[in-house]
Amino acid sequence: MEKETARIEAFSDGVFAIAVTLLVLELHVPAFDVGKKPAMLLTELKAEWPGYIAFVISFFSIFIIWVNHHKVFKQIYRRDTGLMFANGLVLFLVSLVSYPSALLARFYLSESKQVSVTIYTGLFLLINIAFNLLWYQAVKGKDLLRPGINEQAIKQLRDNFLYGFPTYLAAFIISFFFPDAAILICILLWVFWAISSKKINFTDKTHHPNPK
Amino acid sequence: MEKETARIEAFSDGVFAIAVTLLVLELHVPAFDVGKKPAMLLTELKAEWPGYIAFVISFFSIFIIWVNHHKVFKQIYRRDTGLMFANGLVLFLVSLVSYPSALLARFYLSESKQVSVTIYTGLFLLINIAFNLLWYQAVKGKDLLRPGINEQAIKQLRDNFLYGFPTYLAAFIISFFFPDAAILICILLWVFWAISSKKINFTDKTHHPNPK
Amino acid sequence: MEKETARIEAFSDGVFAIAVTLLVLELHVPAFDVGKKPAMLLTELKAEWPGYIAFVISFFSIFIIWVNHHKVFKQIYRRDTGLMFANGLVLFLVSLVSYPSALLARFYLSESKQVSVTIYTGLFLLINIAFNLLWYQAVKGKDLLRPGINEQAIKQLRDNFLYGFPTYLAAFIISFFFPDAAILICILLWVFWAISSKKINFTDKTHHPNPK
Amino acid sequence: MEKETARIEAFSDGVFAIAVTLLVLELHVPAFDVGKKPAMLLTELKAEWPGYIAFVISFFSIFIIWVNHHKVFKQIYRRDTGLMFANGLVLFLVSLVSYPSALLARFYLSESKQVSVTIYTGLFLLINIAFNLLWYQAVKGKDLLRPGINEQAIKQLRDNFLYGFPTYLAAFIISFFFPDAAILICILLWVFWAISSKKINFTDKTHHPNPK
Repeated sequence: MEKETARIEAFSDGVFAIAVTLLVLELHVPAFDVGKKPAMLLTELKAEWPGYIAFVISFFSIFIIWVNHHKVFKQIYRRDTGLMFANGLVLFLVSLVSYPSALLARFYLSESKQVSVTIYTGLFLLINIAFNLLWYQAVKGKDLLRPGINEQAIKQLRDNFLYGFPTYLAAFIISFFFPDAAILICILLWVFWAISSKKINFTDKTHHPNPK
Repeated sequence: MEKETARIEAFSDGVFAIAVTLLVLELHVPAFDVGKKPAMLLTELKAEWPGYIAFVISFFSIFIIWVNHHKVFKQIYRRDTGLMFANGLVLFLVSLVSYPSALLARFYLSESKQVSVTIYTGLFLLINIAFNLLWYQAVKGKDLLRPGINEQAIKQLRDNFLYGFPTYLAAFIISFFFPDAAILICILLWVFWAISSKKINFTDKTHHPNPK
Repeated sequence: MEKETARIEAFSDGVFAIAVTLLVLELHVPAFDVGKKPAMLLTELKAEWPGYIAFVISFFSIFIIWVNHHKVFKQIYRRDTGLMFANGLVLFLVSLVSYPSALLARFYLSESKQVSVTIYTGLFLLINIAFNLLWYQAVKGKDLLRPGINEQAIKQLRDNFLYGFPTYLAAFIISFFFPDAAILICILLWVFWAISSKKINFTDKTHHPNPK
Repeated sequence: MEKETARIEAFSDGVFAIAVTLLVLELHVPAFDVGKKPAMLLTELKAEWPGYIAFVISFFSIFIIWVNHHKVFKQIYRRDTGLMFANGLVLFLVSLVSYPSALLARFYLSESKQVSVTIYTGLFLLINIAFNLLWYQAVKGKDLLRPGINEQAIKQLRDNFLYGFPTYLAAFIISFFFPDAAILICILLWVFWAISSKKINFTDKTHHPNPK
């Protein structure tokens, strides 16, 4: 059966690729007068460190969302309106990431640190919800999934997402009290996803012992 | 028969993806001095609400135009110059959206609200006209359409677009007197398109009872 | 024979799509204080007209370069290093368009009008040269072209490009004396390309009377 | 065997295409008052020359990284997590290029020249390391490579990358003492890659004497 979702994936890839690449525009090049002496330039660049951290975290967050998007859409063969709009919601939130990322970079060293971390983790909580919605739309009737997909593969993907929601919710709640801990939880979640990613790839291979 | 329009779709997907993702650049990050206190930052961010509304409306407008573009091009198999330039016109207007969107965000709370809403709805009226032109170019001789497409599918697609023009025209005219009503009409039209979108997908399935 | 150039086309489509879509960032949204009264906003927006003209011209210039790129690459099946770097040169110059376009928009109403028009037409002259180089790389040994392409198709494509160089050279030279005439020549050339575009499409159909 | 890496390549192409096209945003359009007289505009534009140089070098650096990425992924047929994250690291660093490029453009004519050149060559050293990591992930077990790839092709690709690391390391170290020499080394390395690129293409053809 022909895969109907090629253009959805192409459009989504475009949004993901642009969203990660636009992040660099939030990095601030010091003004000429401030940076014309080497020592001053280095001081300025060092003072930008929250911007670098925000850039790294945002880049790899979006990247891992893309990896998961990729993995989910490998199992989706047909599309319906619900799926398209759930996907649209994911892309909407992903395209928004650079804004709270810029807030985080600018206000991390101010008293507004907690507010900016809460907004940041709040967006990732929303992305997680949207992603679960996308997955729910895809599996609810199984009409949209790859023909011949087995229950175990569906279960594994579902399990993979189940961890995300409580963790992001926890990070969001914790951000009100311990912003740094909230950021740390987000980072640890990606490490987990990077590792669990491996397992599902392995399973995928097991399911296709005889690739054509 | 080979589909000739793959690269047109790829280029169009690129423009749509970039157009939606660039919208975030119009959101304004408060200056450090204005936002360094949490209460001030929250006040600043709240004051940005027309920007968020404009972002949401513009994102989903472009997204729905992309959904329709996707649907129309699924039925187009060959290209001619008229089609390419009609498509170019659609892309030109879509790439422009972030500008009236930024005007709307900046001037919604000023006396210039009506002017900015009129410009905004005016652009969507033009996009609608360009889209109808694209559809007209595609169906006029049927040479460009998917071989074996039936009259009912053509009619359904055409009907889908017929509602757009009078509605956008109405929104544009109403914007001179009741700007908020004009914005509301645009939003309602998308809800309608999201719903009607469903029906056409359903029909598509009926036409291919035996997908290869 | 498999087409080797798919990823070159994808990358090129990306650059073209981004280059046209970034142009909108050069349009200037009036400051809040300048535009908060409707009459002042309209006056401000009207004063931006060279920016709109530059946007329209630059958009459709890049779009037509993309149309031609598309047409040329339909005939190219294999790649070599010369082709990749000639293509890289075209993309480099295309990615640059927004800069002279911004210069043109900003200085068209100043004494620097002629300088900005000369830079602008100069860039399109360079793009034309790079495009001819790309075409030269593609046809020089015929190894790279679509198997079975006939002499007439090659000749037609070559003729199509022959008109470009003298015209852009003329526009560039004329820009030193009559900037508006130079802009007009560029516009007329696109109209010509849009029309001649039709003829080659027609020929293409003739060559494939029995598409598989 | 089906190529599993199509969407990774599409996403990567997107990031590369955006990264090269965003560079133009770092070019500085003179303010109206500074450029309204032709002589002043020309003086201003001439003073921007480090920006043009940085633009050219950064564009073709990313372009050549893309050419190599393209070449490596032609040999990769399957993906695993290690490959995806090594690729993510390459894309992360590539998306960052415009920042040190802007630093270089702004501070090349100041006392901070050496610092900005060191940061710039340092980033390309990191990209080279990430690229070697990607290649290492691809070849370590040969499971991911094109079925039937021979040792000679692998060796040629590996040799191609071997030169890069010591050269970029040398450029990075030299940048502390002779910044201009470091820039020159980077440029010479691309010329080498452009030439060596040719040889590998030639080998590729030899390996497929009977393309289907």
